[in-house]
Amino acid sequence: MNVDGKPMRPIWLDEKSGAVRIIDQRRLPHELVIMELADVSDAVRAIKEMAVRGAPLIGVTAAAGVYLAVRRTPRDGNAVARAGRLLKEARPTAVNLAWAVDRMLSALANSPQGNDPIDRARKEVTTIAEEEVDNCRSIGENGLALITAIRESHPDRPVNVLTHCNAGWLACVEYGTATAPVYAAHDRSIPVHVWVDETRPLNQGARLTAWELSKHGVPHTLIADNTGGHLMQHGLVDIVIVGTDRTTSTGDVANKIGTYLKALAARDNGVPFYVALPSSTFDWQLRDGLDEIPVEERDPDEIRFVEGSEDGSPHRVLVPPLESPAVNYAFDVTPARLVTGFITERGICRATEADIRRLFPEKQRH
Amino acid sequence: MNVDGKPMRPIWLDEKSGAVRIIDQRRLPHELVIMELADVSDAVRAIKEMAVRGAPLIGVTAAAGVYLAVRRTPRDGNAVARAGRLLKEARPTAVNLAWAVDRMLSALANSPQGNDPIDRARKEVTTIAEEEVDNCRSIGENGLALITAIRESHPDRPVNVLTHCNAGWLACVEYGTATAPVYAAHDRSIPVHVWVDETRPLNQGARLTAWELSKHGVPHTLIADNTGGHLMQHGLVDIVIVGTDRTTSTGDVANKIGTYLKALAARDNGVPFYVALPSSTFDWQLRDGLDEIPVEERDPDEIRFVEGSEDGSPHRVLVPPLESPAVNYAFDVTPARLVTGFITERGICRATEADIRRLFPEKQRH
Repeated sequence: MNVDGKPMRPIWLDEKSGAVRIIDQRRLPHELVIMELADVSDAVRAIKEMAVRGAPLIGVTAAAGVYLAVRRTPRDGNAVARAGRLLKEARPTAVNLAWAVDRMLSALANSPQGNDPIDRARKEVTTIAEEEVDNCRSIGENGLALITAIRESHPDRPVNVLTHCNAGWLACVEYGTATAPVYAAHDRSIPVHVWVDETRPLNQGARLTAWELSKHGVPHTLIADNTGGHLMQHGLVDIVIVGTDRTTSTGDVANKIGTYLKALAARDNGVPFYVALPSSTFDWQLRDGLDEIPVEERDPDEIRFVEGSEDGSPHRVLVPPLESPAVNYAFDVTPARLVTGFITERGICRATEADIRRLFPEKQRH
Repeated sequence: MNVDGKPMRPIWLDEKSGAVRIIDQRRLPHELVIMELADVSDAVRAIKEMAVRGAPLIGVTAAAGVYLAVRRTPRDGNAVARAGRLLKEARPTAVNLAWAVDRMLSALANSPQGNDPIDRARKEVTTIAEEEVDNCRSIGENGLALITAIRESHPDRPVNVLTHCNAGWLACVEYGTATAPVYAAHDRSIPVHVWVDETRPLNQGARLTAWELSKHGVPHTLIADNTGGHLMQHGLVDIVIVGTDRTTSTGDVANKIGTYLKALAARDNGVPFYVALPSSTFDWQLRDGLDEIPVEERDPDEIRFVEGSEDGSPHRVLVPPLESPAVNYAFDVTPARLVTGFITERGICRATEADIRRLFPEKQRH
């Protein structure tokens, strides 16, 4: 997508040097800083410390991490396998991490003898990234129908979309998942307005979604996470669209903490609640999200301290008393019963096992 | 309540000078600053700018504002009436504001000729404040039964209470409303632990509730507002207790924005959801909270900027992009159907018109 008129992605391979470059998302929106990942430990750190975040982007970064390991020791299968394990352990919730690492390892294992492993790894990273771009483009086209239908039912005002966290192009490679239908509508001059949950504690909505939308010129309004229910009670939200870090084969959705509360409010007010995801975010092995999806617990200081800008320079302030403890669960699970439907690269389906399988029949368990 | 072993209230009359003193709650928890209110305009400003906040305390401060007006112009009924109007308009949602002003004006009007109006006004402020103290003490005693019952059903672990915003002694005069049962339990050595919602945007939970509980030695953990649903899904919340700024005669509850989301999560997980309030917070005239209770919209910069402490000194950081707009609704309305019950100074009742009237028969409409 464009940043000040210049096309940009959150991760790319430098064609000449072969290095991996990322936007350091911890510095947004006040600074646009590009970081170089030189080896697999850089990639692990970037994922752990959330310089990159968002399930699809974590997947692509992990794939790039495998490529960096291969670049370092092209003929040492053990070292590459070890790198894959480190990458998989960097964060527990997003399933794309393991998916992308396994895909890289399998591409390398199945590469004909004599082929250059570095070249093979680089090609596979690029393929994974481009597939995610294609998937997000299709998610946008498929979700556009929902926005168009709402617009037709009240042509007098913009379509109000509420989103939580950042499931935009910064979380993917292009378009985003939850934002893809929004960008598709906006680019076709369908008036759309986004309520952006600030998304405590790390404020990915306030910092990243607001930045993305602002850079692309999409009308939006920042709200406290507490506000969505009130807006829905007063008819100010037409549709909720969020992303996901892992979704079970039965339709339970792990996403940023607080998503479940918005799903409850949507249900209570008859507002459609959609989850946008590429198929790489389904975990086909899992059947009970609440029981089976690991929820990451992060540093409590992410709650106690808030990062922002004062007079243009970065500052970090303590909000509660120094002695008060905090706990920081990063995700929650929204049960399938609260989800109106999934917007995937193949189309839209209801949040039931049967409907998901109908869209992805090749994932049928045997 | 005690602050570092010294008894303290959020508002008091200086016996010698007759001046009104308050804790400036905007500076907590990092600084304990006492402010003097010299006249009614100081009182209006303290309420508007939230140096004092919380429905019962706003009521007492408004009463003190009328007293300050009388002290300035003891024989000018018009000036005092004008002061009353200014105070009532300071904030729209808390009903205690109008209730306390009307009570002061009526006490003055009914005072026998020849009596000193300053003396009469001072006495009435003190009476209102002491009644709020008595009410909160009774709310604590009545709510204690709920906590004791939970403790008896699982004697092996502390009772986990979740609260939103600050409905503690800082919001009242002593004990608080939502916190009164917690303090009552803690002081009787019943193990109790409080999940403190940080309560964006003004962080009254992180700044005030955490500070109060910490000063009184009550175990507590700060959480992002997004977290309560996840905790309830995993059985980590035994009871939710919140305060209210205005409650209709039919049981609809206006409280800090985000309360409705916690009520939905409580209902979805079978967790009891209680609202603690003195009868001064009932608005006996209203029957439909969503339609009839005015919801204050405050400065969007309260969302865009976060205040805290850096190296011990106050700082204020911008989180979103400078160009992103925000909207700041201060309250939402939780429908009576989601409320398990009310904890009042007279006892506990269900959130139905009939049950509320049974507890307060003298409020029956004629």
